[in-house]
Amino acid sequence: MLTLYELLGADDRRFSPYCWRTRMALAHKGLKAEIIPCKFTDKHLFAFSGQDKVPVLKDGDRVVFDSWDIACYLEDTYPDRPSLFGGPVGRCEARFFNEWAPTLSRLFLLTVIKDIFDHVHPDDKAYFRLSREQRFGKSLEQLGAESDNHRAAIDAAMAPLRAVLEHQPFFCGDAPAYADYIVFGHFQMVRSISPKRFVEKGDALYEWRSRMLDLFDSLGRSVNAYPE
Amino acid sequence: MLTLYELLGADDRRFSPYCWRTRMALAHKGLKAEIIPCKFTDKHLFAFSGQDKVPVLKDGDRVVFDSWDIACYLEDTYPDRPSLFGGPVGRCEARFFNEWAPTLSRLFLLTVIKDIFDHVHPDDKAYFRLSREQRFGKSLEQLGAESDNHRAAIDAAMAPLRAVLEHQPFFCGDAPAYADYIVFGHFQMVRSISPKRFVEKGDALYEWRSRMLDLFDSLGRSVNAYPE
Repeated sequence: MLTLYELLGADDRRFSPYCWRTRMALAHKGLKAEIIPCKFTDKHLFAFSGQDKVPVLKDGDRVVFDSWDIACYLEDTYPDRPSLFGGPVGRCEARFFNEWAPTLSRLFLLTVIKDIFDHVHPDDKAYFRLSREQRFGKSLEQLGAESDNHRAAIDAAMAPLRAVLEHQPFFCGDAPAYADYIVFGHFQMVRSISPKRFVEKGDALYEWRSRMLDLFDSLGRSVNAYPE
Repeated sequence: MLTLYELLGADDRRFSPYCWRTRMALAHKGLKAEIIPCKFTDKHLFAFSGQDKVPVLKDGDRVVFDSWDIACYLEDTYPDRPSLFGGPVGRCEARFFNEWAPTLSRLFLLTVIKDIFDHVHPDDKAYFRLSREQRFGKSLEQLGAESDNHRAAIDAAMAPLRAVLEHQPFFCGDAPAYADYIVFGHFQMVRSISPKRFVEKGDALYEWRSRMLDLFDSLGRSVNAYPE
């Protein structure tokens, strides 16, 4: 019996990139989990994990948190199901995606942070404003006014991703695996809460994202989001 | 019978990051190759390849160029020797290192370009100046004067590499493989021609580089370079 504690926004929006990684990893393994949606201010729901961030996975009595640790747990616990890493080298190389992704994620976040604020659950507005204004040392309104300053840096960050996709349909090859889910999560964050677009039809990354959205009976389209 | 055409500088310096990738890949596979050192102005030596860049590998009648294609050729042609990729997913994930590495490489290059000029073979000075000044739209002296402006960007680019090494000794896991050689080549470029240092003792990347230099009977230390 698997249970996934996942971030919830207003109107059923799901904008946590890390929770999307876990959702896709579970689907890749063909595992079903009960989803427990949690607002930012629902941390008591998963306090049993001993920390305060989602995703948290419960597998029977076992509790795992941190999206990377959850992926490794699933790979090690369900080795006979489709592999998330394709072996030890693939797992260790996927770490680089895991550590590199914040470079892109931070730029996405700075561009859509006002959109996130508009879509967090009403109960979470005060929490989100306070925590993000502290993190970035600026008001959400200031961050919003500067939100279009990051386009050039985003294009530079996306360049190696685009270059890879000239050679192969997924970051893990002919079929997707965990490194694809790492990158996909950040695109899902944007799509869930913002009409802003970083990829347009005809862009290799747009086509890749479409393939990712098609996976697992269109799992990535199964919750409220802006049109593609 | 394997032959590798490789870039040569003054005083036996070998500063091509891409040739280092191939050198390490050959050693990883336990393959010996005759090395044919070529100056920038020796392109006639490997004109048989139909293009003008090293590394070029000859394996009997077969000619392969481009460091990535050489790595794939070695993996596919010598499958019973130690794997460079650890399987199809590992190979495709290594592509991301291949496409991402120029981000770091360009910053290294801009920082040490005057040092490279000082260490290219005397026959190549005019070629190097003209081609690089055209590429960057500035004189080598201008580039040299700006060479310390890239430190913050280099630290930002190296951050995900450092983060990975908090979890594992090599980018490919417990042992090095091709993604390690991709990154290592760029550090070898710097070490071959410049006293400038981007990593210091105690830094996870410095310790990794030391482990890389130890490999294959200290192959990385076998040519003229600045002290570590």
